[in-house]
Amino acid sequence: MLLTTPKLSISSSSSTTALTFPILLKKPGNFHFIQSTPNISLRAQPTSSSSSQMIEKETIETHRPDTFLRESDEPSSSSDPSTVRARFEKMIRQVQDSVCAAIEAVENGSKFKEDVWSRPGGGGGISRVLQDGAVWEKAGVNVSVVYGVMPPEAYRAAKPTSDNDDVKPGPVPFFAAGISSVLHPHNPFAPTLHFNYRYFETDASKDAPGAPRQWWFGGGTDYTPAYIFEEDVKHFHSVQKSACDKFDPSFYPRFKKWCDDYFYIKHRGERRGLGGIFFDDLNNYDQEMLLSFATECANSVIPAYIPIIEKRKDTPFADRHKAWQQLRRGRYVEFNLVYDRGTTFGLKTGGRIESILVSLPLYARWEYDHKPEEGSEEWKLLDACINPKEWL
Amino acid sequence: MLLTTPKLSISSSSSTTALTFPILLKKPGNFHFIQSTPNISLRAQPTSSSSSQMIEKETIETHRPDTFLRESDEPSSSSDPSTVRARFEKMIRQVQDSVCAAIEAVENGSKFKEDVWSRPGGGGGISRVLQDGAVWEKAGVNVSVVYGVMPPEAYRAAKPTSDNDDVKPGPVPFFAAGISSVLHPHNPFAPTLHFNYRYFETDASKDAPGAPRQWWFGGGTDYTPAYIFEEDVKHFHSVQKSACDKFDPSFYPRFKKWCDDYFYIKHRGERRGLGGIFFDDLNNYDQEMLLSFATECANSVIPAYIPIIEKRKDTPFADRHKAWQQLRRGRYVEFNLVYDRGTTFGLKTGGRIESILVSLPLYARWEYDHKPEEGSEEWKLLDACINPKEWL
Repeated sequence: MLLTTPKLSISSSSSTTALTFPILLKKPGNFHFIQSTPNISLRAQPTSSSSSQMIEKETIETHRPDTFLRESDEPSSSSDPSTVRARFEKMIRQVQDSVCAAIEAVENGSKFKEDVWSRPGGGGGISRVLQDGAVWEKAGVNVSVVYGVMPPEAYRAAKPTSDNDDVKPGPVPFFAAGISSVLHPHNPFAPTLHFNYRYFETDASKDAPGAPRQWWFGGGTDYTPAYIFEEDVKHFHSVQKSACDKFDPSFYPRFKKWCDDYFYIKHRGERRGLGGIFFDDLNNYDQEMLLSFATECANSVIPAYIPIIEKRKDTPFADRHKAWQQLRRGRYVEFNLVYDRGTTFGLKTGGRIESILVSLPLYARWEYDHKPEEGSEEWKLLDACINPKEWL
Repeated sequence: MLLTTPKLSISSSSSTTALTFPILLKKPGNFHFIQSTPNISLRAQPTSSSSSQMIEKETIETHRPDTFLRESDEPSSSSDPSTVRARFEKMIRQVQDSVCAAIEAVENGSKFKEDVWSRPGGGGGISRVLQDGAVWEKAGVNVSVVYGVMPPEAYRAAKPTSDNDDVKPGPVPFFAAGISSVLHPHNPFAPTLHFNYRYFETDASKDAPGAPRQWWFGGGTDYTPAYIFEEDVKHFHSVQKSACDKFDPSFYPRFKKWCDDYFYIKHRGERRGLGGIFFDDLNNYDQEMLLSFATECANSVIPAYIPIIEKRKDTPFADRHKAWQQLRRGRYVEFNLVYDRGTTFGLKTGGRIESILVSLPLYARWEYDHKPEEGSEEWKLLDACINPKEWL
């Protein structure tokens, strides 16, 4: 089904509610997805500001379409095997539904607010935010599907050098889809969770029809408590490991380290939390296998996280616990505003600010020269953020 | 008096308490101070990461020296006319004393915590922070004096092109001194204030003794309330204008606009506050005149700000006023972490993090898609941040 069915009214206002998808161009050697909260973007240091470009503006929808895919990307009949694009979109939308339902079940009253948007040529997204609930102070779960065009230099940098190096392709169409979420609970003993799974494809350039199509998977799930309950951290990591181990025994150790490296607040010398898994640019495995792997990881969010929330959401706490949680949320803000590639680029290229910054907590705190007492519970958390541990 | 008098004990720990002074190198065409909170830095986009450099590590002092100048920079006798370096240092230290005394007088109990630091070859600073006082939630007032060396490329870019272009100078010594302060009160009707005044000089390169010495002044004072009391804003701006008008009638309009342009949160399309004055790279006026001008501006902080605090510090307020103040403080955090050149560079080059981030408020808040009701007091503030006004 096309996006612009008769049931969909497309408003002329494009500035009020939608996710954005900045495109970044990296200097030669790399062209891929970046970890992005909640927008999806293509990683890169633009070689100059003019080499970055925006996708056309989104419009707000009053109804949720069955798919954001262009008609050409949809299976031609129900007996056709679906494209990876179609199956990935279906997967992230199911995960959005199930995660939001699980959160609403725990909330037992508060509901997500939904915004749906689309772009005229195909693509769109669904943004869901629950703010100041009974359990979560802010929970955002966003999916998006983006069609765009990348300049040929970026494509040449991305494709294997052995392929048709003498061909000079024109602009290269691409497809990007992803789910991204940050969940900040109220209770200082209940952890913040972030997850993001994304799929990227290029089409062949119009000027070089023989050029190969490229695809990549990226994503991860990471865990950010203010206090360590070792059984919780072990549970969270063991669910990640189980998901990984179903596919490749090297995945968990490799993606666990990648996560520790990525969520590093360099100016603090500490990670924002206790990690999890993170991977990017994955294409050197079977495509079906990676689609199953991303699906498995995304489906592991609920069993990895919700039991911990159920256990900690009503734990009694004192003001000092809340103050420490807010201090750690200050670190979350520092990471996202200073280092997170999707956030920083989104801010600089005019993305929809409220969608980009939905990842920020409701409250954060900066205390001058705060140093937890050695051996205290706060110190233990800080120590684990400075010196990443093997939890399993 | 030299820094390392017998009374000063220099500890071996350099990681605990001191301001930092990252050096940035700009691509050809510019080399000057940047607005910096609370550190001082030389503006620039580094052409590569290796072209940035750090100054040697600081050591903590137990006593406050009379001066942080090198002996060669001090007047040789009391009858000698002092150097601009010496007079600028004296001025900023007097302003630090007077501003801290004025704040403590209003606090009527809470006191600043002071950290003194130095560097072996000369230079040092005094950092003062008052946290969670009766009136201010966080107040930082820092002075610093820095000696460093800039690479010759930076110097060649900075000096007038007509001067000895065929000479290839070696590394160029420089001197930088400044005062920087951010004052965040508790009461949502009492405004945040930031000010920063700085002076910069290069020596002649050792390889090119005939090359000219360069100097610049920079600084500004800006006003960030959560609510507009027009009489307060007028008072603040009129004190700035009076200070400017004593020197040049073009200063206030020019520096007022410069301030509105500098403190711009691009991704929000709004300024962080209601402006004030801001200037940088000033050297095309008489040096004595600019020293007097910077002194006048710095001495205007107390009359511009303290009467407003006295008037608003005890105004009754509701939770919604506090929530709005914290939301605006979120914007302050966004500006400082994303745009402020001194902060962002300090974070990336390993400056002393607590000194750099003392500018952040104790509390900040991010609410999804918050839109003040049109015509409300909150809306009026936002409107004035989006559309800068002429207050006088």
